[in-house]
Amino acid sequence: MLSEAHLGSASQQALDALRERFGANMAVSQALREQHANTTCYLPNEPPDAVVFATSTEDVQDVVRICAAHHVPVIPFGAGTSLEGHLNAPLGGVSIDLSRMNRVLAVHTADLDCVVEAGMTRKLLNDYLRQDGLFFPIDPGADATIGGMAATRASGTNAVRYGTMRDNVLSLKVVLPSGEVITTASRARKSSAGYDLTRLFVGSEGTLGVITEVTLRLQGLPEAVAAAVCAFPSIEAACDAVITVIQSGLPMARIELLDDAQVRACNAYAHLALPELPALFLEFHGTEASIAEQIERFSDIASEFGGSAMQWANKPEDRSRLWQARHDAYWSVMALRPGAKMIATDVCVPVSRLAECVVATKQDIDAMGLIAPIVGHVGDGNFHTSLMVMTDEPAEMALAERFLSRLVERALEMDGTCTGEHGVGQGKRKHLAAEHGLGAVDLMRTIKQAIDPNDIMNPGKVLPPSNRIVGGGAV
Amino acid sequence: MLSEAHLGSASQQALDALRERFGANMAVSQALREQHANTTCYLPNEPPDAVVFATSTEDVQDVVRICAAHHVPVIPFGAGTSLEGHLNAPLGGVSIDLSRMNRVLAVHTADLDCVVEAGMTRKLLNDYLRQDGLFFPIDPGADATIGGMAATRASGTNAVRYGTMRDNVLSLKVVLPSGEVITTASRARKSSAGYDLTRLFVGSEGTLGVITEVTLRLQGLPEAVAAAVCAFPSIEAACDAVITVIQSGLPMARIELLDDAQVRACNAYAHLALPELPALFLEFHGTEASIAEQIERFSDIASEFGGSAMQWANKPEDRSRLWQARHDAYWSVMALRPGAKMIATDVCVPVSRLAECVVATKQDIDAMGLIAPIVGHVGDGNFHTSLMVMTDEPAEMALAERFLSRLVERALEMDGTCTGEHGVGQGKRKHLAAEHGLGAVDLMRTIKQAIDPNDIMNPGKVLPPSNRIVGGGAV
Repeated sequence: MLSEAHLGSASQQALDALRERFGANMAVSQALREQHANTTCYLPNEPPDAVVFATSTEDVQDVVRICAAHHVPVIPFGAGTSLEGHLNAPLGGVSIDLSRMNRVLAVHTADLDCVVEAGMTRKLLNDYLRQDGLFFPIDPGADATIGGMAATRASGTNAVRYGTMRDNVLSLKVVLPSGEVITTASRARKSSAGYDLTRLFVGSEGTLGVITEVTLRLQGLPEAVAAAVCAFPSIEAACDAVITVIQSGLPMARIELLDDAQVRACNAYAHLALPELPALFLEFHGTEASIAEQIERFSDIASEFGGSAMQWANKPEDRSRLWQARHDAYWSVMALRPGAKMIATDVCVPVSRLAECVVATKQDIDAMGLIAPIVGHVGDGNFHTSLMVMTDEPAEMALAERFLSRLVERALEMDGTCTGEHGVGQGKRKHLAAEHGLGAVDLMRTIKQAIDPNDIMNPGKVLPPSNRIVGGGAV
Repeated sequence: MLSEAHLGSASQQALDALRERFGANMAVSQALREQHANTTCYLPNEPPDAVVFATSTEDVQDVVRICAAHHVPVIPFGAGTSLEGHLNAPLGGVSIDLSRMNRVLAVHTADLDCVVEAGMTRKLLNDYLRQDGLFFPIDPGADATIGGMAATRASGTNAVRYGTMRDNVLSLKVVLPSGEVITTASRARKSSAGYDLTRLFVGSEGTLGVITEVTLRLQGLPEAVAAAVCAFPSIEAACDAVITVIQSGLPMARIELLDDAQVRACNAYAHLALPELPALFLEFHGTEASIAEQIERFSDIASEFGGSAMQWANKPEDRSRLWQARHDAYWSVMALRPGAKMIATDVCVPVSRLAECVVATKQDIDAMGLIAPIVGHVGDGNFHTSLMVMTDEPAEMALAERFLSRLVERALEMDGTCTGEHGVGQGKRKHLAAEHGLGAVDLMRTIKQAIDPNDIMNPGKVLPPSNRIVGGGAV
């Protein structure tokens, strides 16, 4: 019998049952519980009551069954890299840590797909795939787990060419709130056989079930890769160049914007010597001949908008260094203001509105005196601000919240979204109705209630609290 | 007051209300009702009680509200080209004909997207887009409506390069079973803001709501296009060439298989003089230089597998003639056996299993003495058989059904799907549990019941009759 004084009797009974079933694979230490609530998120830490380390789908089923029997919340945990409080346990409950479920179950080289357990991380997977000349392109920066990336509909620097998790998950194995396991689809590249359960779970943030296996579409390693940096006289010029590049149909593999503040931070952190101007980090994939053609076209467009000559990173190690600098943007910004927390947020707009949206955001940052470098997967119209805030100073937080609200409102006015790839979690629930309308949010709630009637799956995430009776149903 | 003797009183009241609201835009003639139940489907015609011609989303809302109030079925109708009984009205009800809702509401050239009413047809849309240098790639052969294509998750010859409706619909306007209207997403290229309602309705075949507007992703017209035909000594050789081409990462725009029977039928119908061997119809998109490179690589692979020299269709009118012949495959097969009906069916398997699956299917056709040419969007592992059957002869139908069951079973054994692009409708409901498992089908049913509790939206489609109590919910 455990003795956590703060637990209700239902939770207590569930924890006893879990301890009996999982022994040393269950933990209740304060440090572990806090670590599983959040690592990289600015929101207050709300730890679960316990952490169970799952090693199989059957383990996950048993956790869910035990928790379901006692109406205790279940919060799936991968690598802990989510940014909007997805892992917090506002109502207590049990964090299922899937990081030990990290096996590759199959690689079908001839079909360009693979099956992995949900706790596999993307870097480990790519190390594994390299021997077969394959790679998995989705690249959110952090070394997230594939299950977590599916759950949050992640994307990243390569999405402009290869799509997001929405496009690259072929099938999922999911433990439902009842403990039952389903497989959402076959390995066929396309199907019209029934509702798209795969896409229902991709982006559902653990609120409809726990993903335990993922079948992924893969890509052949490109024959040739070229990477470069190109500086622009203004952020508007850089964005306008991006818009033209996308409209021209150039198959960019990566086209990443860093504003001058971010370039300065990268220079300082990664010991680079880039001109401290807005820059595009670029990557081209293809055959030698097609890359040469792409580069020529890109250069023509860039020079129209005042772009500098491109600085090339031709050797693989130079390319790695360049992209490491881009991926270390997070750490480079963290170093700008020791003691502050980062509020990393993102929005996405139709690409025609990108320049306008980024420029207005930058003006807000300057006018409000904020430290908030901008990076963006701009080929998709998606960009991030990394706001450094003393979160325990109410005046700073109020200012930050004003900035964030204006950012989202502006994106929605432009027919964009409140989050391109970070997800809703706790942080963006308040924007969901403004983006989708009350009717659509009610429909989401109808689906949630039907699949998880006792609201045990990651409660308090995605859906805002309801003021209306369930919509969606017929009169 | 109408006087259809076969109607229940609820239906009668609904029809009276619809007549009052819609006047001449509602019809009850036998001919119109039968035409709206089916045009190109082998299943018995089950006409609705009435047809309403909608001219706006508000019209659709009013039909749905009136039908909902009387628990009368609603069956959305586009161009009537579906193949699995999607349009039948086994429980009676009202067909909503959306073909008059065919306006282009917006073309955002800079964002490569457009907004159309659901009744717009794909050919009309492409005529409209040409002036802007854009096109909409999804190409199921028939000149279907965009709404119907979204509802059935259609694809076609270009899917290998540009994806299916799943990938090319950015957002939908949908009338729910309550009559409420929702918009499923913004125009942003990607989003992590909540459940993927767009993908929930794409492929739901009118069973969750009526799609009235569609926002589509568009493509720039390729700078250069090349098309060709390549003959192979055997169907296995042709499939093996396809497998190698796909694995090599060649960005084929189209790669279509026709077996020898289909080539003969096309020669006869379209007055072509192709060698009467299995053939691949090919299209390449890109710049002149990249196409030259693609063709060289394709030719190398084809010759490895005994492919003939390519017959080119370089002029636009030759290209049109070639693809018209491919799209007229339906009519060319209809001409093979006057008086018979066509059972057009499709399956899709992982591409590594394609040759094995097509060869075994061909052996079945020969062994059973069936007339059933094969065509396939083989780059996706998807192929069709066009079975010509005297559907009123029980022995023939029994044989056809045995063939169809074996076809689906084989695809499922290969981790494929019972339909790559035709949908489930009435015809493939019986295969859904074998493909997805009872748990997944129960989850689909849970979703259907939550959104449409009175089962008024296209009842008797997609979901098989249930023997189990609702699953999916928590214990």
